[in-house]
Amino acid sequence: LWNSSSLHVCADGGANRLHDYLVKCSVAVDDYLPDFIIGDLDSIRDDIKIYYQNRGIIVIKQDTGWAPDILKAIHICELFFHKIITDKNDAEFFQQFDEVGGLVEFTQKAVGEIHKANKKLKILRKMKTVMLGGIGGRFDQTLQTISQVYSQHLNCNDIILVNNLDIMALIPKGTTYIKVSNYLKDDYQFKGFNEQKEKSILGTNCGLLPVFQPITIEETIGLKWDVKNYQTSCQSKISSSNALHAKNFIIIKSAMELMFNVEL
Amino acid sequence: LWNSSSLHVCADGGANRLHDYLVKCSVAVDDYLPDFIIGDLDSIRDDIKIYYQNRGIIVIKQDTGWAPDILKAIHICELFFHKIITDKNDAEFFQQFDEVGGLVEFTQKAVGEIHKANKKLKILRKMKTVMLGGIGGRFDQTLQTISQVYSQHLNCNDIILVNNLDIMALIPKGTTYIKVSNYLKDDYQFKGFNEQKEKSILGTNCGLLPVFQPITIEETIGLKWDVKNYQTSCQSKISSSNALHAKNFIIIKSAMELMFNVEL
Repeated sequence: LWNSSSLHVCADGGANRLHDYLVKCSVAVDDYLPDFIIGDLDSIRDDIKIYYQNRGIIVIKQDTGWAPDILKAIHICELFFHKIITDKNDAEFFQQFDEVGGLVEFTQKAVGEIHKANKKLKILRKMKTVMLGGIGGRFDQTLQTISQVYSQHLNCNDIILVNNLDIMALIPKGTTYIKVSNYLKDDYQFKGFNEQKEKSILGTNCGLLPVFQPITIEETIGLKWDVKNYQTSCQSKISSSNALHAKNFIIIKSAMELMFNVEL
Repeated sequence: LWNSSSLHVCADGGANRLHDYLVKCSVAVDDYLPDFIIGDLDSIRDDIKIYYQNRGIIVIKQDTGWAPDILKAIHICELFFHKIITDKNDAEFFQQFDEVGGLVEFTQKAVGEIHKANKKLKILRKMKTVMLGGIGGRFDQTLQTISQVYSQHLNCNDIILVNNLDIMALIPKGTTYIKVSNYLKDDYQFKGFNEQKEKSILGTNCGLLPVFQPITIEETIGLKWDVKNYQTSCQSKISSSNALHAKNFIIIKSAMELMFNVEL
């Protein structure tokens, strides 16, 4: 995951978690240095901040309370994705902004203009971000993360949420095809390839999650318990502990957005 | 928490977690025996099942797929709360039901009739349940738990969700008063009572969580960032990382249900 990403950004206390995780796994911390650390910096420990600063990592303070730290991290990704900045070591670029919210405001304005121009030219360029550890902590933070995934989805940014238990993504309106690996954990077991189990990534358990509003899922194809015209909400019923069944891809048709999680 | 509860039920794999947690904490497992273990029993380990059966704990298999295991555990609580059964060692009572869903169906019918009779007599008796570990695992299971909290709320059962990070409950329609402890963690710090920190229970961070549907919160009183006519949903904005501010109680006014979590 690390090597397949072109930019690595820690949101505030995320730097502690990256550092501590590497130490815990007895992996050299310097082999996995982030490119940036950004946030209001109320969570990053002083020793971690100094550790990364000593290695030349740019640490950016943006205090503005109305933007959560994960949004600030997304803004750094946008600056590089849209080539507003291209040099990861350009500390001077970041020094020109005030620490309240100067960089946040600049990025939102600049990216907004690029989106407007792209729309005119009918260009659709989607940024893909993988977010580690955004879910599974305090529940208000989990829900805030999901709300950010929704607003970024409207903003041409696809975010995949990953923690130690789940992988989760937003399913947009309409028909969505999801490619699934041939190498599900259970598949190995069926075929007696237990020894290769560590090569598999996805588990089989999954859920269709109406977190945004009550919805009707028109149809799914490829799940163990496929649904048809399924009215679902946290006030009625939810298809949890469902399972991936198809070997190649699954299809989800819905007139409204939902989240979809698969066990890791 | 254990001693203030009159009945202790493990939902399937919950028995593993109770057992393993006690072992991990070097506490005698036999000092905290549950009264019942119920579920489809696909998660409880054989050694744990035998361990508890050898100590006389009644282990009840109910296979029915349409009822999640946490609902089956709630049904056991209802049987005792409504005094349909009073003897915790009455194994014969449970043996009369088939293992598919006999007990689930019996309980739903019996409790439904009691609710109907109570309604006629204008009696409102609320069962209070604390659920450990229902949130914080795989996200589809977390959402299923929240959906159960909603349907049980309509069923006169108040459920408090607790895990190692959060305590979370449903806020009903209307005006809700929540008593908060004088002994917030930060309070101790302010007063220099750091050495007494372990006596505190609640943290200060909290969130107003529109998981059921987009809602408007009319007013809150007693939070660090109180809201007024606040339109909130996972598609727009969420008041996360808010904080308890009042020392005695807080007030939440909302025309629709929401969840409210406080950090532990």
